[in-house]
Amino acid sequence: MPSVEIVTIGTELLLGTKLDSNSVHIGAALAEIGLDLYAKHSVGDNEDRLASTLSSALERCDGIITTGGLGPTVDDLTKEAIARALGVQLELHEPSLAALISRLAHSNRPLTENNRRQAVLPAGCVVLENPNGTAPGFIAFRADGRFVAAMPGVPREMRAMLSDSLVPWLRDHFSLRGGIVSRTLHTAGIPESEVDRRIEDLFRLQENPKIAVLAHGGLVDITLMAKVSDRSMAAQLLDPLEKIVRERIGVGIFGSDTDTLEGVIVCELAKRGLTLGFAESCTGGLLTEAIVRTPGASEVLRGSIIAYANDIKEAQLGVPRELLEAHGAVSAECAIAMARGALDKLHVNIAISVTGIAGPAGGTAEKPVGTVYIGIASRDHEAVAHYRFFLGSRSDIRSRSVLAALIILQDEILTMKPTEG
Amino acid sequence: MPSVEIVTIGTELLLGTKLDSNSVHIGAALAEIGLDLYAKHSVGDNEDRLASTLSSALERCDGIITTGGLGPTVDDLTKEAIARALGVQLELHEPSLAALISRLAHSNRPLTENNRRQAVLPAGCVVLENPNGTAPGFIAFRADGRFVAAMPGVPREMRAMLSDSLVPWLRDHFSLRGGIVSRTLHTAGIPESEVDRRIEDLFRLQENPKIAVLAHGGLVDITLMAKVSDRSMAAQLLDPLEKIVRERIGVGIFGSDTDTLEGVIVCELAKRGLTLGFAESCTGGLLTEAIVRTPGASEVLRGSIIAYANDIKEAQLGVPRELLEAHGAVSAECAIAMARGALDKLHVNIAISVTGIAGPAGGTAEKPVGTVYIGIASRDHEAVAHYRFFLGSRSDIRSRSVLAALIILQDEILTMKPTEG
Repeated sequence: MPSVEIVTIGTELLLGTKLDSNSVHIGAALAEIGLDLYAKHSVGDNEDRLASTLSSALERCDGIITTGGLGPTVDDLTKEAIARALGVQLELHEPSLAALISRLAHSNRPLTENNRRQAVLPAGCVVLENPNGTAPGFIAFRADGRFVAAMPGVPREMRAMLSDSLVPWLRDHFSLRGGIVSRTLHTAGIPESEVDRRIEDLFRLQENPKIAVLAHGGLVDITLMAKVSDRSMAAQLLDPLEKIVRERIGVGIFGSDTDTLEGVIVCELAKRGLTLGFAESCTGGLLTEAIVRTPGASEVLRGSIIAYANDIKEAQLGVPRELLEAHGAVSAECAIAMARGALDKLHVNIAISVTGIAGPAGGTAEKPVGTVYIGIASRDHEAVAHYRFFLGSRSDIRSRSVLAALIILQDEILTMKPTEG
Repeated sequence: MPSVEIVTIGTELLLGTKLDSNSVHIGAALAEIGLDLYAKHSVGDNEDRLASTLSSALERCDGIITTGGLGPTVDDLTKEAIARALGVQLELHEPSLAALISRLAHSNRPLTENNRRQAVLPAGCVVLENPNGTAPGFIAFRADGRFVAAMPGVPREMRAMLSDSLVPWLRDHFSLRGGIVSRTLHTAGIPESEVDRRIEDLFRLQENPKIAVLAHGGLVDITLMAKVSDRSMAAQLLDPLEKIVRERIGVGIFGSDTDTLEGVIVCELAKRGLTLGFAESCTGGLLTEAIVRTPGASEVLRGSIIAYANDIKEAQLGVPRELLEAHGAVSAECAIAMARGALDKLHVNIAISVTGIAGPAGGTAEKPVGTVYIGIASRDHEAVAHYRFFLGSRSDIRSRSVLAALIILQDEILTMKPTEG
């Protein structure tokens, strides 16, 4: 089995101020084409250390993918180190120089010595074009065929070069027709342990395709992964398994792959011609924001009233003062009244309210931090749900409240008829 | 100069699904105490590859810091690899076993064989206690004194162990009294090029303390860094430089180090006894959310009206229909009317409105995507600002609008008298 390692280059990667997202992105691309990644390394801008890291990695694997150090100021360092590790010379690459000159002429800039150095590349290399920047990438070879593929460190430049040039080259070079093909089913409103329970036997039995369950931010994803020698065979393996999983989980699955809960909600509301509004207290705009950032939101969302202070709940949402005095702002009664107020003031088909104690202060024995009420009102239906989020910071409690509200909203939409409102 | 390398362990770090935040966190801690980090590596759960990575790193540096692979299921692998690389034996560490037994007894759980294995450690190691989990960390030594310090991979466990046990040990072991001490001044409302222009000469002249300017998300940070052999000498180097920078930049500096613009705004409003409300259109809750997530927000923020649809601007904010028809919702006139409406409906001292076209659709030749108006109203002052954010996605334009609104708000607060309202 062919294998590669990744080396990301730049002293800034070692100072604890920057996450190395490039190697994560490359790792995902390699997993997808079924190329084994044995290790990854980050080294500073130091030619000796870089050359030694490259040389020892070349003893362990078939090729190395590097990012960074190709910019006009430090390029000599990376290219020198790569040339040394491979035992090749650096030389002026005429086509790259010509391309650079024509590009600079286009924007009326002169060719500087720094620019010129960017066209100096290892002898015999394959050039990887960089449509988003001036430094080209390249794949250079050792006499025995092992290689170093060098890409720029700017994520936008690197990502385009990876998907458009390097991945196709790697597939071809290693004759990789297969890889890992995955499909993710997103569930909401079912605890991870319950998801596990329902598909536990599939877990145990299946080697290929495999199933992985991942809970994150209150949602649970079920990923089906097929390792195939030819990608066109993936559907044959994944389709029957997906069918079984869907039967076991049911309506808890709200979407797949790139779907989001907000996206599905906006789409379903639009399809049914329904409008939406919110009355938020402790979530303070976070729920509205979750919908607004979703494409298509303007078709369904009319507005929100964020009533952080009690008298705004009264004045803007029509929550009766007596109700607030009798039950408090964090109560089922207030949540219902807020939702009803939003339904009325915002002239929408569905209104959702959130009121709770996100902390760190404000909790009592009866209503501890994490107590949240979510109300829902439509023309012929009103309901309220009560939560106690025991763990987590103020920010966690607010995020969980938003997710709970979205799940309630999604449930409500699924039960509403298309012609209502 | 002593130096170390980091090795993070776990196949999941290579699959492109997980950012390695542990090594970033450790990198920052090492920079702070002035210990050189030469390189960092991630390797999968494979004993041979791990042992070989550790052995070759031990030839280059004085010590290695690892994270991951100490859990009850895979611990043998990491510990075996470390023991092999160092040439020491693994043996049962009685005090760790006793601590584990007493801990399990406390929560009424029996000692399993897996638990017992967690108390097997390299001979002669220093144990690093883990108050947040069951797997202890350790520092094990090669005959020549070079070491491997192993910590768990769970970030919460690792971070506590790093700051409470490993960093003090490293300081002591390498007699590090110095390090890099930095101070960051945050500016808002001044373009990066202008910040550069005003302090350019300091940049060039200064070797120690050094200055770095970093623009991020529309704000510009100025970081002053002093490399000192004794941390108590840092103020002597940083104080005079900070004074000069503050003179050059003036009121554009809104805070330092852990200060945030929202935090400073909430604090200044509370100090002056002023209340705040928003009327948001294209930002859809994002501006309100920025304030709500700030500690102390409930003292100053009363509420917001998110008027995404035009008739909500009319009904809830009192924007005249004729105004909307004559000028459109994205106009200076509408922004002022929205701010005035919020001031009135929410009974606040300062109201800010945002209306604009965040795209991707909705732009015209006259009002292209990126056109944003921000209005401000207080009892005796009204103003509007017009922006065209040319670059960036819908999400970028919305974030930039929020930042612009916060900067306007901060400017307004600075000019208001404490007793107003």
